[in-house]
Amino acid sequence: MAAAKVEEKELENHHNSDCLIQLSNPNLATMKEDVLYHFSLSTSTHDFPAMFGEVKFVCVGGSPSRMNTFIRYVATQLGLDRPGEEFPNICAGTDRYAMYKVGPVLSVSHGMGIPSISIMLHELIKLLYHARCSNVTIIRIGTSGGIGLEPGSVVITRQAVDACFKPEFEQLVLGKRVVRSTDLDEQLVQELMKCSADLSEFTTVVGNTMCTLDFYEGQGRLDGALSSYKQAYLRAAHAAGIRNIEMESSVFAAMCSMCGL
Amino acid sequence: MAAAKVEEKELENHHNSDCLIQLSNPNLATMKEDVLYHFSLSTSTHDFPAMFGEVKFVCVGGSPSRMNTFIRYVATQLGLDRPGEEFPNICAGTDRYAMYKVGPVLSVSHGMGIPSISIMLHELIKLLYHARCSNVTIIRIGTSGGIGLEPGSVVITRQAVDACFKPEFEQLVLGKRVVRSTDLDEQLVQELMKCSADLSEFTTVVGNTMCTLDFYEGQGRLDGALSSYKQAYLRAAHAAGIRNIEMESSVFAAMCSMCGL
Repeated sequence: MAAAKVEEKELENHHNSDCLIQLSNPNLATMKEDVLYHFSLSTSTHDFPAMFGEVKFVCVGGSPSRMNTFIRYVATQLGLDRPGEEFPNICAGTDRYAMYKVGPVLSVSHGMGIPSISIMLHELIKLLYHARCSNVTIIRIGTSGGIGLEPGSVVITRQAVDACFKPEFEQLVLGKRVVRSTDLDEQLVQELMKCSADLSEFTTVVGNTMCTLDFYEGQGRLDGALSSYKQAYLRAAHAAGIRNIEMESSVFAAMCSMCGL
Repeated sequence: MAAAKVEEKELENHHNSDCLIQLSNPNLATMKEDVLYHFSLSTSTHDFPAMFGEVKFVCVGGSPSRMNTFIRYVATQLGLDRPGEEFPNICAGTDRYAMYKVGPVLSVSHGMGIPSISIMLHELIKLLYHARCSNVTIIRIGTSGGIGLEPGSVVITRQAVDACFKPEFEQLVLGKRVVRSTDLDEQLVQELMKCSADLSEFTTVVGNTMCTLDFYEGQGRLDGALSSYKQAYLRAAHAAGIRNIEMESSVFAAMCSMCGL
């Protein structure tokens, strides 16, 4: 969990300019109530600025129990833990996602795959907007399949690419193809790399991350109910600078970049 | 939960011919152990035929707690419940999915979206295969957004269609587009419709179901962080026979059909 160490460093670096969340949806301004269905939170029943206003760092990952482990680790690192203290699940009213908070850090689960993380990100971005958060850094952490790396290595993603190795996230909006860029914050990549070098606990590389819609066939695994393994494809991916494969990075990059995160 | 009533009827109808699970992956035959990672089950540590051999009906849905509620309802309907009995989560070793069983019925959660249900289906189909199950009927139940229907109506899906209204599931396998058909079992559609008529508890229609990769923009919702609402798109969908929208039906139809379910 190298990312945890980053929190503290980032806290010092990013406090100068005031960067707010940008929503690309004029309808929200005219809505009396905004219900975040899949968090079981609503602007009419919860005080978002009081609950989340101080948030500066959001860490997201697939599994609810891992995000709970993560917030307890962050609490220890920040000296904000108290003996016997539990971190309650802020989204306890639903079993879609789990959310935990300590100080300026929010830890949220997103399930598996682009659609699942996309629903969570829509609601998370609105939550940060309603809470009037500023200068928020968001990091996804999770397991992934390495290409040409020792198991246990950490890959910091420079660019998320699709299954054709293109740095694009293609989405069907109302039946029409919309293509969005998947660039990530290069300064954050460098800072994370520096943190990892200072820690020197894990082999860490910067590379591109391939995002697929499928775990078995999409990633060329041998052991699905249907199978599609080809060594040549993985070799071509490595040659294209791809160092790992997972299932959420492209929409994460596209949505964060569109909303000024 | 009209689907529960179906279990009993189906039990009588489908026992004549012997229909086994077909896997399209020759590698599995040569593997000493098959680990179903996301179920936390393995052929070397669990006796699949003993645990699951009698399964004839699998009901899948997004939320773990709903699938628990569902198995308790089925147990009552089948007279297989005992006072104070809990149904343990068979996948308790992981928080990716939850699985419950009573008699011939298996109830499994799949999270949200195509990639999430696709991982579950790969492992579920292998589970049924290793358990040597025969004549299995699989039904997805879940909430969906209706088009031109009263809230609370039930839609029985005849065909799953994509966001362009085509009855296809398009997937990138090793960077290449693969298109699979999304037909469902017409006999099962008719039987479900008949059950619903016998029950006459819910307004029930047979229609096509649109499967999108996104809940907010993909379905034209007004309240996402980004928005894309167009009434004309929903009208065109209705004209194309689409009666509801959800996020898992296309890959469900494609994978079940390829594996003889």
